[in-house]
Amino acid sequence: MALRERVAEVVDGRRCRQVVIAVIVVNAIALGCETSPSLVASYGGLLTSIDHVALAIFVVELAARLYAHRARFFRDPWNCFDFVVVGVSLLPAAGPLSVVRSLRILRALRLVSVVPSMRRVVSALVRSVPGLVSLTGLLLLLLYVGAVIAHNLFTASGDPRFADLGSTLLTLFQITTGDGWSDMMRDLMVTQPLAWIFFVGYLLVGTFTMLNLFIAVVCSAMESDADSPDQQVLQEVRALREEVRRLSVVRLPDHAGRN
Amino acid sequence: MALRERVAEVVDGRRCRQVVIAVIVVNAIALGCETSPSLVASYGGLLTSIDHVALAIFVVELAARLYAHRARFFRDPWNCFDFVVVGVSLLPAAGPLSVVRSLRILRALRLVSVVPSMRRVVSALVRSVPGLVSLTGLLLLLLYVGAVIAHNLFTASGDPRFADLGSTLLTLFQITTGDGWSDMMRDLMVTQPLAWIFFVGYLLVGTFTMLNLFIAVVCSAMESDADSPDQQVLQEVRALREEVRRLSVVRLPDHAGRN
Amino acid sequence: MALRERVAEVVDGRRCRQVVIAVIVVNAIALGCETSPSLVASYGGLLTSIDHVALAIFVVELAARLYAHRARFFRDPWNCFDFVVVGVSLLPAAGPLSVVRSLRILRALRLVSVVPSMRRVVSALVRSVPGLVSLTGLLLLLLYVGAVIAHNLFTASGDPRFADLGSTLLTLFQITTGDGWSDMMRDLMVTQPLAWIFFVGYLLVGTFTMLNLFIAVVCSAMESDADSPDQQVLQEVRALREEVRRLSVVRLPDHAGRN
Amino acid sequence: MALRERVAEVVDGRRCRQVVIAVIVVNAIALGCETSPSLVASYGGLLTSIDHVALAIFVVELAARLYAHRARFFRDPWNCFDFVVVGVSLLPAAGPLSVVRSLRILRALRLVSVVPSMRRVVSALVRSVPGLVSLTGLLLLLLYVGAVIAHNLFTASGDPRFADLGSTLLTLFQITTGDGWSDMMRDLMVTQPLAWIFFVGYLLVGTFTMLNLFIAVVCSAMESDADSPDQQVLQEVRALREEVRRLSVVRLPDHAGRN
Repeated sequence: MALRERVAEVVDGRRCRQVVIAVIVVNAIALGCETSPSLVASYGGLLTSIDHVALAIFVVELAARLYAHRARFFRDPWNCFDFVVVGVSLLPAAGPLSVVRSLRILRALRLVSVVPSMRRVVSALVRSVPGLVSLTGLLLLLLYVGAVIAHNLFTASGDPRFADLGSTLLTLFQITTGDGWSDMMRDLMVTQPLAWIFFVGYLLVGTFTMLNLFIAVVCSAMESDADSPDQQVLQEVRALREEVRRLSVVRLPDHAGRN
Repeated sequence: MALRERVAEVVDGRRCRQVVIAVIVVNAIALGCETSPSLVASYGGLLTSIDHVALAIFVVELAARLYAHRARFFRDPWNCFDFVVVGVSLLPAAGPLSVVRSLRILRALRLVSVVPSMRRVVSALVRSVPGLVSLTGLLLLLLYVGAVIAHNLFTASGDPRFADLGSTLLTLFQITTGDGWSDMMRDLMVTQPLAWIFFVGYLLVGTFTMLNLFIAVVCSAMESDADSPDQQVLQEVRALREEVRRLSVVRLPDHAGRN
Repeated sequence: MALRERVAEVVDGRRCRQVVIAVIVVNAIALGCETSPSLVASYGGLLTSIDHVALAIFVVELAARLYAHRARFFRDPWNCFDFVVVGVSLLPAAGPLSVVRSLRILRALRLVSVVPSMRRVVSALVRSVPGLVSLTGLLLLLLYVGAVIAHNLFTASGDPRFADLGSTLLTLFQITTGDGWSDMMRDLMVTQPLAWIFFVGYLLVGTFTMLNLFIAVVCSAMESDADSPDQQVLQEVRALREEVRRLSVVRLPDHAGRN
Repeated sequence: MALRERVAEVVDGRRCRQVVIAVIVVNAIALGCETSPSLVASYGGLLTSIDHVALAIFVVELAARLYAHRARFFRDPWNCFDFVVVGVSLLPAAGPLSVVRSLRILRALRLVSVVPSMRRVVSALVRSVPGLVSLTGLLLLLLYVGAVIAHNLFTASGDPRFADLGSTLLTLFQITTGDGWSDMMRDLMVTQPLAWIFFVGYLLVGTFTMLNLFIAVVCSAMESDADSPDQQVLQEVRALREEVRRLSVVRLPDHAGRN
């Protein structure tokens, strides 16, 4: 028990955090250097060693935190994040899983969970998600409905961008970002002169919904901001009202008693 | 009369809604599968059956709601939406109306009218429309005036994008979204070196107006948001003022009486 | 004098406005129809007559308002706007001024000055301009400085988009809108591999400034909005403070008198 | 000492500022004219002289301010800005430093430090930076992690845009601005059909983070705006609360004394 507490003190301490930050940064730079064939040719062994040592340090650190906090460890979503990111690196990176090797760099994202100010920023991002579920659902529904319509309308043109439902979904996502939609429309209008109706309609509806999604994010961000002047005013006004209430409670019997 | 009430209870009940949601989702997936030739080859009959059964269920549900609510049915815009979306599917989808077949997927949008949280989101979107009528009118006027000017200026260049007023309107809509406007301008500047004046001017005026349209949406969204801290402050302050007024009414005769 | 007042009553009246709106709409449609060669071939004479009659009505209306309001006429910027738009149509549209013919459609913008709701919208747009002068000046300065630097850096590449200061200014405006900047950069990087430094730097500085310009517009729009909850709260709080002050003035002598 | 004070009075005075503004504008125009070979051929000597005279005036002005304010001179960041901008022009512009010649136009940015309204605008821009450090760090981290992943995934395709880490970083920056990302994705999908997963994922995460960066700027701008109605309300409410507190302090002993 005493050991567990001492371990907790060490792994949650400031010095341990600084070491971990340093290891993350060094590891991220090493993984960046591994992208250069010339650096790999000269220092390949060193870079691999750094990667292995860093991974070992992360595993030891996580094991220590797991030992120190036991089941509570997984209650903190940031710990789960660390666990997954480090766990991914322990998967065998061969055969069909070779893409996993590319994901080792995700360990650099541990910087977010270790640096408090970044943690706050990402927490704020994540907190704004629940308020967006309905609007995101609406956007996905519009995407799906739009893709089925676009596929039915434009598949006859033989354009590979509308060949199957998957391609059409990707194409509609592209239209939503506004990149190259006009070239696509003009290509289709050669064979289907009314194709513009779909494109203009989809852009208007999609952009209007996106705009409202955006506004919903702004509004919820402003409302949940406890330091905002609005929230300060609300607190001041409530405190004031409390004082006035006390004042009127004191005066009213006084007044009643005198008559 | 008793039957009418019992029908109303059933069609407005929670269980009925869940059934309708399930039918909408199954139907939307089936219509998505119909876009794949290989799936149609294997399960074509099943997919068509699902579509027919789903349509039948929708028709029965709408008929029941129409029977239960009679004329009130059409007072709710969401009911009108359901009625139109289902009605479109009953049109004969042959000859010039073959495009109607593509619109069967619009039934998936009934999900919006059935799921309460989505209904709220879309209601909020629709409520923000009236405040935008003037600005949208202004944008359409700018589009029309810009298109007539652009047609007169650039039709001599033989560019098909400015060949008639319809094409020019579409081209100006494209410029407003900012997609590929520079290539178009550089094409025109080969023959008309001053074409940039129109493009830069139109982009500035159009973007500035769009920006203000956007701000108008944000502002109206914030003002109409009854849960916003501003609205809470307003309520608190009004309640407070009421209390102070009561307090001063009580004290003033007291004061007057004593002199 | 009596005549002048009666004229003022007529030209400022509701019926006159409705007639002018109708003439503007008919004239705008006629000018739109003039863009179609086939319609001009069939109804060319009619379209030209409509244009001449509409112009005559506008001239008479403006002359009447000028007669009724005399010097005050030019104090209202909307009147000046009407005067310029109609005046442009009276210029001889021949030779180098043939572009003036295209500007006849600007008369359709008179709709803005005649319809009150559009007038309010545009007034709000114009009111937000003074607060933007400094930021716009900054953007223009950045554009000029960026253009001189870009011209000096890239003129050696022989790219016509950087051939002289005018072209470079236009190119930088294009980069600011984000359209096709990457293709341009990759073209230049073939001969000047460090060209990306300028592009990335200019985009970051320009976008950040634009973003702040945008925020300034939003903020000033919200502050000047007299119906906003904030302004309502401010009024309520000020009224409340006035009442409290009256209350405390009443009580204090009471309190003093009793001791 | 008396001389130092008199110099300070002159260089900080209004007339001196007007002269400096005039010199900056003339110098900026001259540097703009130098970009035109025909103007250089006709008036090359004059333009060079203007540049030299303007630089001399700037050096004298800065020297005078340095003499007048001594060490305090460098405490004002605007002075440091002026010092660097003028200093750059004094570097020898030959050989590898020929790019420095292009940077002479940066002197035009001194306009910002001299014109008070522009100074305020830029100060506001700079003040909003500290609140953005965490989010910018997050964006840079995402860019780096994304670039390492993209390089590992797409380098095999032989696309020069993903050839090394530097190119990939630039390419991801381009994707973040949304310019031409779809063409790039479709090129890669020819050999790697799953490339869309990276592109869509990166765009969603990147855009969502950018959106929050934007919101953070808006929120901090609104909160720090001392003239905003919110801040006015806050001041009014605090003053009101102070008055109520005074009122209740006065009444309570009165009430207590009588019982």
